Amino acid sequence: MTTKPPRDIAAYPFRTHTETRFQDLDPLGHLNNVAIAALFENGRVRFNQSLPLTHAPGTRWLIARVEIDYVAEGFFPEAVEIASGIGRVGNSSWQIVSAAFQAKGCVATSVTTLVLTDKNGARPMDDAMRAVLEAQLING
Amino acid sequence: MTTKPPRDIAAYPFRTHTETRFQDLDPLGHLNNVAIAALFENGRVRFNQSLPLTHAPGTRWLIARVEIDYVAEGFFPEAVEIASGIGRVGNSSWQIVSAAFQAKGCVATSVTTLVLTDKNGARPMDDAMRAVLEAQLING
Amino acid sequence: MTTKPPRDIAAYPFRTHTETRFQDLDPLGHLNNVAIAALFENGRVRFNQSLPLTHAPGTRWLIARVEIDYVAEGFFPEAVEIASGIGRVGNSSWQIVSAAFQAKGCVATSVTTLVLTDKNGARPMDDAMRAVLEAQLING
Amino acid sequence: MTTKPPRDIAAYPFRTHTETRFQDLDPLGHLNNVAIAALFENGRVRFNQSLPLTHAPGTRWLIARVEIDYVAEGFFPEAVEIASGIGRVGNSSWQIVSAAFQAKGCVATSVTTLVLTDKNGARPMDDAMRAVLEAQLING
Repeated sequence: MTTKPPRDIAAYPFRTHTETRFQDLDPLGHLNNVAIAALFENGRVRFNQSLPLTHAPGTRWLIARVEIDYVAEGFFPEAVEIASGIGRVGNSSWQIVSAAFQAKGCVATSVTTLVLTDKNGARPMDDAMRAVLEAQLING
Repeated sequence: MTTKPPRDIAAYPFRTHTETRFQDLDPLGHLNNVAIAALFENGRVRFNQSLPLTHAPGTRWLIARVEIDYVAEGFFPEAVEIASGIGRVGNSSWQIVSAAFQAKGCVATSVTTLVLTDKNGARPMDDAMRAVLEAQLING
Repeated sequence: MTTKPPRDIAAYPFRTHTETRFQDLDPLGHLNNVAIAALFENGRVRFNQSLPLTHAPGTRWLIARVEIDYVAEGFFPEAVEIASGIGRVGNSSWQIVSAAFQAKGCVATSVTTLVLTDKNGARPMDDAMRAVLEAQLING
Repeated sequence: MTTKPPRDIAAYPFRTHTETRFQDLDPLGHLNNVAIAALFENGRVRFNQSLPLTHAPGTRWLIARVEIDYVAEGFFPEAVEIASGIGRVGNSSWQIVSAAFQAKGCVATSVTTLVLTDKNGARPMDDAMRAVLEAQLING
C-alpha cells in the first residue's frame, strides 16, 4: 500500500532547493523525466542527511522501489523545490514521499520504498529509528 | 491497475543491449538507481522507435507515471539487456513493461504509463494504434 | 592561443550559484570530472542568456573546444559558484572563460571556444556582437 | 605540450563500443557536449582497465586536465566507437588521447592529462609503468 503524495508543499516537513541545469533538458525543451528522478534522489539524500539517525554497523538502506507521477511539464532555468517527508513506516521498510514544485505548481510527485537490511536480508528497525521516521510524517 | 513485470526475458517481445558507463556508478560502486531509470528510458525509446506507428499531427505521448522495482545490484562494466513489451492498453493510455538483465539475472523491472494527448488533453487511441500496441503484449 | 583562466572570482563579471547533486558524485565520493563539465555548461548557458544578444536568423553558435583544468577535489553537498566572462574575441570565434569555486577555493577552470556559423560555415561576428562580448572581458 | 589526436581510428591501439542513449541528446537533438565527455570518460576507464598495471598502495591517478575538440555533430541512436591510446609520457604525468567515431566519421577528439600522486603530491612513475604506457602509444 502506497501513500498518495500530497501536492501541497505545506504537507511536507523538509525542503531542498535545487537549481535546474541545462543537462536536465530533453529534446522537447522540458525537464526530462530521468532528470526529475535525479532531482528527487537529491532531495531524498538531503532529507536523509537531515535526520538524527545513525547507521548500525553492518546495516544498509536499500532502495526497493521508486514511483514517480509526472504532473506537469518542468522548465529550465527555473529552480525546483523538492519537499519530502515520511509516508508509511512498516516493520523493516518505510516510504519517503516527495513532491517537486516550480512557480506554476507541482511538477511531479514520488514515493520511494526503502528497506533496512543486514547480511541476512531485511531487518526490523529499532524503536529509535522508528521514532525518528515518525517525527517526519507528512500531513497527508 | 498495473501489470506485474515478468523477470523472465523470454516474456518480452523486444530487447535492446546497452553498454554500462562509468557515469552509471554511484559512490557505493553499483549502478545508480537513477542510471537504471535512464537505461529503462533508453530501452523504451528504442522500443517505441521500433513500432510501426505514426504520430497524428497535434498529438503527443506524455509519460504520466514511472515505477521501478530494484531487484538486485547492477554492475559496471557489464552490459545490460533491457527487454520491453506492452502491458495494459486502455482507452487513451497504455503501459510499457520492461526488465533489465545482467549475467546474474534480473536487476530491475519497470512499468511506464503513457497517455495519448492533443490540445484538449487525453485523447482515445484509434484502432490502428491499439492493434500495433496489442501485437507487442508481454507474455505475463 | 588560449586565455589562462584566473582563479580569483573577482576577475569574472558573471556568477551563477548551483546546488551540487548526489548524481555528481563518483565512486570515490568526489564531484566527478564530467559532472564538473556539466556545471560549467550550466554556468555558460546562464552567462549566455544574460547577454543582450540576438541570434541572427540562420546563425548558430557551435562549441568547437572545451578545456577543463581540475584544480582540487570538489565535494557534495556543498554548492558551487561558477564564475564566467569572455577571454579572447576573434573574427568569428570567442572564448568563454570560467572557474568553479567551493568554500576551500577554486575547484576547476574552463575555457570554451565558440564559433559563429551560418550555412556556409564560420561567419564573422558584427560590431554589435563584438561590443557585447568585449563588455564582459575577464580581468585576467 | 599536447599531442594532437589523430582522426583516423587505425592510429589507436584500443577501442570501446558504446550504445548512445536518449539521455545523451540535447535540446537541439544532437549528442550533447557533456554527454560526449562522458563517452570519452567511459572509453578511458575501459582503456585503463585493459592495461596490465597495478596501483601501488597509497598512489592515485588524478585527472589534471581534459581537452575536447568537437569535430562534427553526433547522433542518436547510432553507437559510438571510442578509440584510445597514449600520447606523451612525462616524468609523473601522461596523456590519454582518444577519438570518437560514428558512421560519418570523427565526432570529437580528446586529450586527458593524468598525474600519478601519493600523499606528497606528484610522484615519478617507475619503469614498469612507463613501459606499459609506452606500449600503447598512438601512431600520431
